Amino acid sequence: MWRAASKQVIRTVGSCLPDLSPLAKQLHASPGSKKIVGVFYKANEYAAKNPNFLGCAERSLGIREWLESQGHQYIVTDDKEGPNSELEKHIPDLHVLITTPFHPAYVTAERIKKAKNLQLLLTAGIGSDHIDLKAAADTGLTVAEVTGSNVVSVAEDELMRILILVRNFVPGYQQVINGEWNVAAIAYRAYDLEGKTVGTVGAGRIGKLLLQRLKPFNCNLLYHDRLKIDPALEKEIGAKFEEDLDVMLPKCDIIVINTPLTEKTRGLFDKERISKLKKGVLIVNNARGAIMDTQAVVDACSSGHIAGYSGDVWNPQPAPKDHPWRYMPNHAMTPHISGTTIDGQLRYAAGVKDMLDKYFKGEDFPQQNYIVKEGKLASQYL
Amino acid sequence: MWRAASKQVIRTVGSCLPDLSPLAKQLHASPGSKKIVGVFYKANEYAAKNPNFLGCAERSLGIREWLESQGHQYIVTDDKEGPNSELEKHIPDLHVLITTPFHPAYVTAERIKKAKNLQLLLTAGIGSDHIDLKAAADTGLTVAEVTGSNVVSVAEDELMRILILVRNFVPGYQQVINGEWNVAAIAYRAYDLEGKTVGTVGAGRIGKLLLQRLKPFNCNLLYHDRLKIDPALEKEIGAKFEEDLDVMLPKCDIIVINTPLTEKTRGLFDKERISKLKKGVLIVNNARGAIMDTQAVVDACSSGHIAGYSGDVWNPQPAPKDHPWRYMPNHAMTPHISGTTIDGQLRYAAGVKDMLDKYFKGEDFPQQNYIVKEGKLASQYL
Repeated sequence: MWRAASKQVIRTVGSCLPDLSPLAKQLHASPGSKKIVGVFYKANEYAAKNPNFLGCAERSLGIREWLESQGHQYIVTDDKEGPNSELEKHIPDLHVLITTPFHPAYVTAERIKKAKNLQLLLTAGIGSDHIDLKAAADTGLTVAEVTGSNVVSVAEDELMRILILVRNFVPGYQQVINGEWNVAAIAYRAYDLEGKTVGTVGAGRIGKLLLQRLKPFNCNLLYHDRLKIDPALEKEIGAKFEEDLDVMLPKCDIIVINTPLTEKTRGLFDKERISKLKKGVLIVNNARGAIMDTQAVVDACSSGHIAGYSGDVWNPQPAPKDHPWRYMPNHAMTPHISGTTIDGQLRYAAGVKDMLDKYFKGEDFPQQNYIVKEGKLASQYL
Repeated sequence: MWRAASKQVIRTVGSCLPDLSPLAKQLHASPGSKKIVGVFYKANEYAAKNPNFLGCAERSLGIREWLESQGHQYIVTDDKEGPNSELEKHIPDLHVLITTPFHPAYVTAERIKKAKNLQLLLTAGIGSDHIDLKAAADTGLTVAEVTGSNVVSVAEDELMRILILVRNFVPGYQQVINGEWNVAAIAYRAYDLEGKTVGTVGAGRIGKLLLQRLKPFNCNLLYHDRLKIDPALEKEIGAKFEEDLDVMLPKCDIIVINTPLTEKTRGLFDKERISKLKKGVLIVNNARGAIMDTQAVVDACSSGHIAGYSGDVWNPQPAPKDHPWRYMPNHAMTPHISGTTIDGQLRYAAGVKDMLDKYFKGEDFPQQNYIVKEGKLASQYL
């Protein structure tokens, strides 16, 4: 699936050629006051605990004063689902929608159709799969992310999760808080990372940062991507390119997912593909929950075929109380958090402000930020 | 304390000069069958779950057949405390005692006095502070560790714990299993490791491996030790030597303890020293629990002066059910586990076998393995 599904690719690319897309247009804010809506997670009592906690609804990226001083309207909410939500009320007349992958406003084709004034969709963070990108492209909208804003945050978090699984940390912690002491119950399945084979599915910005951080651990590093890493960097990291995903995966003791969610990667790890992985494989997925078949992961964790699964992404988000990943054995899951560190928030807040400023002035964004521009999807979403 | 307590040092060194120590003698097994006692943690139902689980009492380092085929007696137990323990029964006539830091047989001066046949104390792992080293030296015993056997295991585990604290992982995991979803309650105190100041107290084998693994994280790396790291390695790692511990500590966002427990380091982090650390400091201690003042750590975690504390070492071990570190806020503790990964076990089991073989043959051990030799303590214990 990762390498197939070429039909979908061609169709998407075809529809995006500028000369075939009458809706493609240069982004420039029309004159006058704009209505900007931000959808962020609420912090409640935590908002006051850290002056740099810019990513929450209460602090609204710290751009309210700046926007309002220029005469724009800035509505912020965390109420994003269903026909009676606060977000839904503003869909018909908003010009810009800002949201995050941590508490995503799902921008469906239906919402896009309703949003007659909408020009710009900004993701404060990385990963814009909460938007129907094809519908956005066909409607001539611009979608942009703060590329790079939290890639370090996510890569660091992935290395943490690798070690948590390799070391069997969670049962150790649970023993402590339960008043127990049973070293054997942890040690019988705790390993060193050194010498193990680690493969990343996708070696874009985050995957490369992870590989660089893995380098001193003396692992056998593999990567699969559409593109080979620059030869100098590849040599420095010592990672081996694997052209065929299904050749790479069964070699891996540890698999890390670093690919966006696209039509090609949705459900990539289904029952069949998981069955071909090494028995006892560890999987880290901070990319997107829907890249996995939810039930196939539960079954493989229960049988022990997957010996540990850790990540911060779920399908959907927030994960409902009865999401089966909460209760499967040998997981080390958290809510979607890896990209929203305080350091990451400072960077993506600054990146959003910069793009809004350029939008008002009719200037281009940094090229790598565009996900949909003039009717075309960025290459990683093809 | 780390740099003072010179009185103790001089006295110890003085008593260890070969010409002043009439008990100093070359180690060589006397002819005939030896009684070897091993004290290891029991694995019970976990023993059968992994054929490489050599470190448990049931597998006894995998050396029983080899020892018995040479006519030696090999007693293994996990029952190590008190006058009626299995270990105590064998003290009067054992020749060799093997134990681990994970389930340590405490070898007091009293036990040494009783052990008339004892010649050799082997630590399967690293860290021999469970032995009264001065009494061992004065009695002419040899104490040796499997130096290097699990330094990688511990260094990897330390990096995991740094990230767990920096990322505020534990509350995130707890939300998941409790059916909750509150990104803000995690994010308001989750950071990137990049750019932070990390200081290691001690830069021996483990400390150096940690610094090497921290290198790609782009931190500000500091270290304090008796000795400077080799200039080439120091340059490669980019870590800065801090001669004065109390100058280094207040600069650190994250402090990692990598020093053995000695009379100089016992209680090193007391109330006063902790009060001078940066507010919100994170501390990782996989070295020894007694380097910290137990209650001072609890108080500082409760007040928030220490924002997170993680480690796998306790005073004493096993930690009793009511040990206050189990219940203090913002900890990420486990039982003593970091050095007893399956990979570590394979290495320290091989190292113990090698030293026993050399002992039987009257050959020297690898020089770096000696903790007490011919009445002298290894330099890291001075």
